[in-house]
Amino acid sequence: MNTNFVGYRCSLCKTEYSPEQVVYTCPKDGGNLDVILDYVAINRSISPREVMALEERSLWRYLALLPVGEPHGEGTPFRAAGGTPVFSPESLRDRLGLHALWIKDESRNPTASFKDRASAVVVARAREIGAGVVVTASTGNAGAALAGMAAAVGQPAVIFAPRTAPPAKIAQLLVFGSHVLLVDGNYDQAFDLSIQAAEEFGWYCRNTGYNPFTLEGKKTAAFEIWESILFRHTFKRVPAVFVSVGDGNIISGLHKGFKDLQELGWLEAMPRIFGVQAEGSAAIANAYFAENEAIIPVSAVTLADSISVDLPRDGVRAVRAARQTNGAYLTVSDEKILSAISALGQVGIFAEPAGSTAYAGLLKALETGLIGSDDPVVVLNTGSGLKDVRAAMQAVSPAPVIEPTINAVKKTLDGVIL
Amino acid sequence: MNTNFVGYRCSLCKTEYSPEQVVYTCPKDGGNLDVILDYVAINRSISPREVMALEERSLWRYLALLPVGEPHGEGTPFRAAGGTPVFSPESLRDRLGLHALWIKDESRNPTASFKDRASAVVVARAREIGAGVVVTASTGNAGAALAGMAAAVGQPAVIFAPRTAPPAKIAQLLVFGSHVLLVDGNYDQAFDLSIQAAEEFGWYCRNTGYNPFTLEGKKTAAFEIWESILFRHTFKRVPAVFVSVGDGNIISGLHKGFKDLQELGWLEAMPRIFGVQAEGSAAIANAYFAENEAIIPVSAVTLADSISVDLPRDGVRAVRAARQTNGAYLTVSDEKILSAISALGQVGIFAEPAGSTAYAGLLKALETGLIGSDDPVVVLNTGSGLKDVRAAMQAVSPAPVIEPTINAVKKTLDGVIL
Repeated sequence: MNTNFVGYRCSLCKTEYSPEQVVYTCPKDGGNLDVILDYVAINRSISPREVMALEERSLWRYLALLPVGEPHGEGTPFRAAGGTPVFSPESLRDRLGLHALWIKDESRNPTASFKDRASAVVVARAREIGAGVVVTASTGNAGAALAGMAAAVGQPAVIFAPRTAPPAKIAQLLVFGSHVLLVDGNYDQAFDLSIQAAEEFGWYCRNTGYNPFTLEGKKTAAFEIWESILFRHTFKRVPAVFVSVGDGNIISGLHKGFKDLQELGWLEAMPRIFGVQAEGSAAIANAYFAENEAIIPVSAVTLADSISVDLPRDGVRAVRAARQTNGAYLTVSDEKILSAISALGQVGIFAEPAGSTAYAGLLKALETGLIGSDDPVVVLNTGSGLKDVRAAMQAVSPAPVIEPTINAVKKTLDGVIL
Repeated sequence: MNTNFVGYRCSLCKTEYSPEQVVYTCPKDGGNLDVILDYVAINRSISPREVMALEERSLWRYLALLPVGEPHGEGTPFRAAGGTPVFSPESLRDRLGLHALWIKDESRNPTASFKDRASAVVVARAREIGAGVVVTASTGNAGAALAGMAAAVGQPAVIFAPRTAPPAKIAQLLVFGSHVLLVDGNYDQAFDLSIQAAEEFGWYCRNTGYNPFTLEGKKTAAFEIWESILFRHTFKRVPAVFVSVGDGNIISGLHKGFKDLQELGWLEAMPRIFGVQAEGSAAIANAYFAENEAIIPVSAVTLADSISVDLPRDGVRAVRAARQTNGAYLTVSDEKILSAISALGQVGIFAEPAGSTAYAGLLKALETGLIGSDDPVVVLNTGSGLKDVRAAMQAVSPAPVIEPTINAVKKTLDGVIL
């Protein structure tokens, strides 16, 4: 056990609990719980310089800042989550007229999405508390991440997915050997069912916006942004971080990570956090625009299935992540999401719709003046385009079919590249 | 330009050429060319210890051993090829009764396959010689790799693919902004057409088993195996490396890499190299079994599309890679390839059929006594399962669809996990 993990605090009523007192949400009001860490103890145990000198390249590099003990599982994909590359494509920067632009590519995680961060830390917690089975509901990526991380260390897992999830994502779950149940209903029904099953069968539930450890895993992306970008540069203006938002747990995780670093005294200025939602799935953005924290469910319709959510489970913290950091919310159309897949592809980054959504949001922020050329910008690509090839096909014109002759080549490429 | 690159040697007639004299294959007999390096100069410029101390994590870590100069393209996926993780799953090792087993996961490359190594080095060469367009024929992965690496550095690319290539692979090409032509014919026709187009339009051709620089890129996997495994352990028996074989260029690349290291005096014992082909696409294995180097074309039929090749373009060197290292060739059925996807999935590694083929080969080698429990084994997974989800679906039983009720859960999982 990690002695730096001292308890939980409800994000709504601020009631504090010891690590043993609760497991998921606040017993009083159902609010999401924030993990409380002993920052003084962390600072006594390790310094930023010591963290940066570690050989570990994965998210376990930040173990001292996580509420779990030694995770073991060496030599497995479980130990290879996080540590994703940061790109700074000159051509995009020039095209957008930005002075500084980074794209953090989370598609390079073991199961090809950001969600591996959450699942790795939840699986570490599950092993620590001796959970027999880990269960989750997922539109795909979180499930695949749990399935992959669990398989890596031999932890049994059950996944509830809506039967409408893309086949590519379901295939990944099954190959990892998880027990997959396709629920004849939407994500929210799968979510409720997984919680019910966890209670009924004594399983440990990983659900996003429910299990406090998902946020703790996701915050490691903020640590990496800090270490690879914020710490290494001096900025005249506060950097802006763009991230797509579905459940609201990733943006809340980034916020928590930056807050941890500030509490530790390792980060001076809090970055501005910009949440980007699909127009058709904008429950959190709606609350932000309404200048309150009331998350009103929508009937989500967007091709960005990873962020298609009727009832966001981490909406309140997600609204605050933007509001408290002087960021904002933006919504973008599916059409813009598809264009963004193509724009990122042209610099060698293949994003799924939910991944390109953040970039589409940056474009809108530039158009509307929310972001100017002097703002340093970090954009997260949260998942691989290989996860949803049907969407990728919509983002591009189909390739021409030609006879195998040089004349056919000439005819087809004349004026294009010839 | 890299002054350690001193010329080419034909793999068939041994004729040597200067770097300026030839571009692709031997003018005399069409043989594949090996790049000749100045090992004395390399040893003067860098030591193994100095290589290992480099901060660079990608394949460019081995720039001193590559026939290209400073590649530039910093901050792009082009600089993130290679540097893939090595896993050592305890459960697989135990199940197979092996004392030492590593799986090098090439699916973690930028475009999710081994081919990024070749494409990165070819694109570096293209930029060095000022090529306007890079062209290739590809069943998918090589094309995606070229498209991705080219996009990363703004290098125009044309890809010829057989129209039967999986849609997921074509989508990736298109998203990367390459000019894709789907050839109404097989891979060999696409191959010939791409060479013809390169000649006709003055493009630089990346084709596998044709352009000598693909091998030079692929050899970097041998360097990584050396650095992360061979160099760090003392073995009683010579390690065995298992790799799937289609065109024959990956296995030849591994062989070249290990030979480079031996010439440099950095590697004592040459690992035994085992090539694994699908039964339905076994032209190189056939030559190996016939104890000659005559590559007789087949009518390839296998679901492992990345290694489905009628006429392997690097067959001679591929036969030698196994023969000269005291390795062997094995063939495996599509059924075993699918089972291997599932076996690797259960330790958190999602392989495409061509990737799991190597593991299927290891199983056969253990069954037939080619490999014993004391043999240290390295298996390469050459590509991500997300590349060919249709195959993955065949490797697993479909997930049950249930009503969103706890009773349906009980009924479905009773006796399974409950």
